[in-house]
Amino acid sequence: MIERIAIIGTGLIGSSIGLALRAAGFTGSIAGLDTNEAELNEACRLGAIDNTLAGDATLLAADVIILAIPVMGILDWMKRLAPVLSPYQLVTDVGSTKQKIAELAAELYNGPSQPRFLPGHPMAGKESGGAALAEARLLNGATWLFTPLPGPAAELDLEWRALVARFGCRVLDMDPARHDVVCAWVSHLPQMVSTAMAALLEDEFAHAPEVAGDFLAIGGRALREMTRLGASPYSMWRDVAMTNTEAVDATLFALEQRLAHLRENLRTPELRDEFHRANAFRARQKT
Amino acid sequence: MIERIAIIGTGLIGSSIGLALRAAGFTGSIAGLDTNEAELNEACRLGAIDNTLAGDATLLAADVIILAIPVMGILDWMKRLAPVLSPYQLVTDVGSTKQKIAELAAELYNGPSQPRFLPGHPMAGKESGGAALAEARLLNGATWLFTPLPGPAAELDLEWRALVARFGCRVLDMDPARHDVVCAWVSHLPQMVSTAMAALLEDEFAHAPEVAGDFLAIGGRALREMTRLGASPYSMWRDVAMTNTEAVDATLFALEQRLAHLRENLRTPELRDEFHRANAFRARQKT
Repeated sequence: MIERIAIIGTGLIGSSIGLALRAAGFTGSIAGLDTNEAELNEACRLGAIDNTLAGDATLLAADVIILAIPVMGILDWMKRLAPVLSPYQLVTDVGSTKQKIAELAAELYNGPSQPRFLPGHPMAGKESGGAALAEARLLNGATWLFTPLPGPAAELDLEWRALVARFGCRVLDMDPARHDVVCAWVSHLPQMVSTAMAALLEDEFAHAPEVAGDFLAIGGRALREMTRLGASPYSMWRDVAMTNTEAVDATLFALEQRLAHLRENLRTPELRDEFHRANAFRARQKT
Repeated sequence: MIERIAIIGTGLIGSSIGLALRAAGFTGSIAGLDTNEAELNEACRLGAIDNTLAGDATLLAADVIILAIPVMGILDWMKRLAPVLSPYQLVTDVGSTKQKIAELAAELYNGPSQPRFLPGHPMAGKESGGAALAEARLLNGATWLFTPLPGPAAELDLEWRALVARFGCRVLDMDPARHDVVCAWVSHLPQMVSTAMAALLEDEFAHAPEVAGDFLAIGGRALREMTRLGASPYSMWRDVAMTNTEAVDATLFALEQRLAHLRENLRTPELRDEFHRANAFRARQKT
């Protein structure tokens, strides 16, 4: 039975998980750890964690430890935790890329005397981070991807999955390599495109008198949506670019080719065919 | 005093204008014309137009005629109407590109014995068209761009502008060539990128078993927003591509270059600089 949970990183996702745990009726303890004291205080104020005083002893006593920080930090914590935890403790994470994490986990976790590890990735977020924006409903309706290591699941793994399902998440298992390719398409590419468009518009129009300071008001909803992720911080995305370089590179290259094709066909029937393909994609989606 | 208005094209924008006129307290007559009988019936049912029986006589008696159809159709109607209207009648439009329209208007309108023309462009829309989706509040808060011809404004022009302001629109004047460049950036580029991304995803994943039919559920809000305009119909955008080819080409090319730059710098500090530029763009916006 999961009774003690520790969340490492009480930013947007970490704090939202704490709030979702409480909303789902979890009555055990929730400890929080963050190098940023303001984030820790805010998480506590919101009720996402119990108090701001979790020390090493609390951490080492947790049944489940959730790593809710960027990927490079997750890899560091995985190495620090593996030697000091028992097989009756589960470490899980919310990192945006999974292959490097799954590789390291296969080395350090799930052996006979090693602690458990279940790589996870809730497909939820906002363009700005921080505990202040955390909410339980951020996870409600989201897809939570898992990329489990080979071998049978432990009781703890199943219990954590059951909690996640109670957040209102749709749980889906994937191979880690496939996860990174799929996420390059559905998450990393949209981010890079939004960043590129916003950066380009900043260069083109920052000093244009007729639109200065109010460019989005002219473009309306379309422009606002297409550049919303431009507000995302580099600190979150650096690790994605570092740990999924090949797949992100491939999706960017494919889109460049596709835009060039469209550009060369602005006055030919091929433009119609592209619109029809795009229409088919949207018509196929249930949501 | 504007007392009789005719709307040619009672789709999403035409019908929304009819509804906005009523919401703004306009008590005169609103005639509607559409080659699609279903659209005309729906516009009438919603109260966007008075009835479905407007003939040539009604049209020719209107104080203001609004051309709410794609750009090529607008150009056709401008030629048909110019010889049969008087200087006491105003034709205006809602076309997405303005240079070709402003050029033709300078030939056929605003001379001593010619009818008036005021090129306009409400920056509002949805990814699907049709009267059924029309609503007065679509225009509330939107920017309505005008690209007036040279020369003094007539009383009728000012009256129409006043009505538009009563829709809750922010009215802004622009040179037509500049309009087409600005709109290539804020509207046409986002559309083309969204179409390209959706078409690419359709090719990559239409037959992928783990995501079939529910791809957007994995990607969440980001993917949904970035591909929303992929549902837009070709019929609306063909004329934009045809009449603003050069500017759309230039923005697409610039974005291709920018994506390539970003792709080549996934592991260098230049990625950070791009994120910072994008952050600056978003921070600059009031909305």
